[in-house]
Amino acid sequence: MTEPLQTEPVIVRRAGGVLFATLNIPATRNALAPEVVAALAAAVEQAETDAEVRALVLRGAGGMFSAGGNVGNFQARLDADASREDPVATRNRQFGYFMQRLSALPVPVIAAVDGAAMGGGMGLACAADIVLATRDARFALSETTLGIIAAQIAPFVVQRIGAAATRRLGLTGERIGGEAAVAIGLVDQLAADSAELDALVAEWLTRIGRCGPNANRVFKTLVSRCGQEPAGPLLDEASRLFAECMRSEGAEGVAAFREKRDANWTVRFDADAVRTAQSSR
Amino acid sequence: MTEPLQTEPVIVRRAGGVLFATLNIPATRNALAPEVVAALAAAVEQAETDAEVRALVLRGAGGMFSAGGNVGNFQARLDADASREDPVATRNRQFGYFMQRLSALPVPVIAAVDGAAMGGGMGLACAADIVLATRDARFALSETTLGIIAAQIAPFVVQRIGAAATRRLGLTGERIGGEAAVAIGLVDQLAADSAELDALVAEWLTRIGRCGPNANRVFKTLVSRCGQEPAGPLLDEASRLFAECMRSEGAEGVAAFREKRDANWTVRFDADAVRTAQSSR
Amino acid sequence: MTEPLQTEPVIVRRAGGVLFATLNIPATRNALAPEVVAALAAAVEQAETDAEVRALVLRGAGGMFSAGGNVGNFQARLDADASREDPVATRNRQFGYFMQRLSALPVPVIAAVDGAAMGGGMGLACAADIVLATRDARFALSETTLGIIAAQIAPFVVQRIGAAATRRLGLTGERIGGEAAVAIGLVDQLAADSAELDALVAEWLTRIGRCGPNANRVFKTLVSRCGQEPAGPLLDEASRLFAECMRSEGAEGVAAFREKRDANWTVRFDADAVRTAQSSR
Repeated sequence: MTEPLQTEPVIVRRAGGVLFATLNIPATRNALAPEVVAALAAAVEQAETDAEVRALVLRGAGGMFSAGGNVGNFQARLDADASREDPVATRNRQFGYFMQRLSALPVPVIAAVDGAAMGGGMGLACAADIVLATRDARFALSETTLGIIAAQIAPFVVQRIGAAATRRLGLTGERIGGEAAVAIGLVDQLAADSAELDALVAEWLTRIGRCGPNANRVFKTLVSRCGQEPAGPLLDEASRLFAECMRSEGAEGVAAFREKRDANWTVRFDADAVRTAQSSR
Repeated sequence: MTEPLQTEPVIVRRAGGVLFATLNIPATRNALAPEVVAALAAAVEQAETDAEVRALVLRGAGGMFSAGGNVGNFQARLDADASREDPVATRNRQFGYFMQRLSALPVPVIAAVDGAAMGGGMGLACAADIVLATRDARFALSETTLGIIAAQIAPFVVQRIGAAATRRLGLTGERIGGEAAVAIGLVDQLAADSAELDALVAEWLTRIGRCGPNANRVFKTLVSRCGQEPAGPLLDEASRLFAECMRSEGAEGVAAFREKRDANWTVRFDADAVRTAQSSR
Repeated sequence: MTEPLQTEPVIVRRAGGVLFATLNIPATRNALAPEVVAALAAAVEQAETDAEVRALVLRGAGGMFSAGGNVGNFQARLDADASREDPVATRNRQFGYFMQRLSALPVPVIAAVDGAAMGGGMGLACAADIVLATRDARFALSETTLGIIAAQIAPFVVQRIGAAATRRLGLTGERIGGEAAVAIGLVDQLAADSAELDALVAEWLTRIGRCGPNANRVFKTLVSRCGQEPAGPLLDEASRLFAECMRSEGAEGVAAFREKRDANWTVRFDADAVRTAQSSR
């Protein structure tokens, strides 16, 4: 096997209505450099606009999810001219725009964490709906140990693991493994190793493949509004959304249920399909 | 044993200041048909208005908590005339009005889940303060597998298990058992079987029976406002509520504490009393 | 050893940039009497204003964290003249002002719970960022069993363990041990006994000692705003805070990282140092 001279920073493959986006700069431990974030943003945009896309899977190549910000780049930005707008703040905010967009994506997102998810890498995982990880995965909000802060990811980390666990991790730089990550609600399910992680991704994609694609988009958006808006008007709108779903995918879904058959949107995945779609590994 | 020709959709019994509301249409797996919801709403209203009621226990007869919406009724409503107001949306919203009322009930609510709590049935459990379940209970937000969405229950599910677990369950239709339900905070305590579930309900009712009935009403209402209102004014009001409680039930409570006796509101329950009150089983 | 005739209600010691505040009225089981709260408030103020303070450790002397409100004082206040302002409400609110201030303290707070943390004592622990406890520690929101309510602590308990667990504990007076407290997210880590608790405190202080002191203050404040403010403007500000941190402590932190050395703010603790600083035990 020979290494290609030039590689894509994020390998994006599509299979069975699922986008597999695999971070692919092992030399920087899949650090979230601007070109990586841009490529991820393009995948998120594709998932947003193409109604055929039913899920997005985030993974890192080379047995590493993502080491977060690139400390080398930090230095370069510090040295840059800061006469008008602070380039450190600007670059930081750009990552946040991506995080907001990923978090708002109505399509289900799975993060499959092999190896380390540090700082921004942990933030990336927190924006997913389902986080799967190998037992020896490692997570940390390591920013404060460098004298900086987890900034653009903070609201998304709080949303996934709560303010208490966010403060504990962020004020101490504590590194946690898979079991501890399950305990704080960061990880949904653990795999023994990378191969079993492929199998788990396939299982969850198969579950998603049984759900109405439009119903999933509508439901994810509704959930993001719960607790943010007064219950009464939200439930008024939810009842209209319910009726719309019922009159579209619901007709097929209820018919399939009564006829004891799969709905016509059903897709199944197996570990091999997942492995192939993440072709860089 | 002969079956009665006509049965109540929800059997409501009162014992020791507790309302036991038992869903009782096993033929539909205790689906949340309009007459079931109306009967539950009547029980909630009784608990609201009668100051002697100190707890509400929700349970399903026939080894089944509730299968949620009745798929058969979905079809009937789809076929109905939708010329003016969409009957699908209207019926959906009506269930939400009940959920809002149940969630706002100042009296402690226990859900005792034997068998399955699916879709709206799981939503019902999420609106309770204490959720007890048999080890082999099953929970799912199965709506999207039918191409529809968990709509009216969404805010209450998010409130109990958080947005992350709600998205995981709702976007995949995943079925979970008792242990997994404890892990995500959906269930507070597990029973080995239905008989032990009676005993657990009795234990928790006995704990509630040691608490001042008015203090419990005031506290539950206060908690529902935490995180929703600015802390300062809420704490101002909390201090006045504290003083009111102190000058009413508090006088007896503090005296009982000093005299090492039970307060005069104390009630105890045992498993037999619970079993009898849920007389349909 | 002879007992001093007069002791401080809270012993405050400073070591390695950490304030150790130890409740020290074992005769009242470290009840939160006004003089105890005033002494705690003074320690919080010191941590707020002195930039050299990097952590606050709360503990109780005599194998007891805090029994909460002093039932004896309740009676005295009930007997007081209530002609103008209700002294019961006023005293209650005063504790809340302290809770608000403790909760808003930007410095990391560790609560080390040995023995019982009841009512307001449990509330005190909930306002900490990291809660450590012995396995046989006991927690309860016991107020309603006295006919009164957990009032000033309610928002802080909800913030740490969520509304569902708060209602379960508050509506039943349930007493839980260390394991159950971990399960509901009240406790972060358990110690076998009091000596091991010293060692755990030292471990977590050593972790905090690796984090930039200013970065920690900025991060804790940012987290407290997540979920409370719209994400967009908050992330705009977070990017400016990030840049400020980067240009101050970040320069040293990144340099230390590249040079594989400790940053110049690094402090380590061991169990002996912790034991000595909590000198009353």
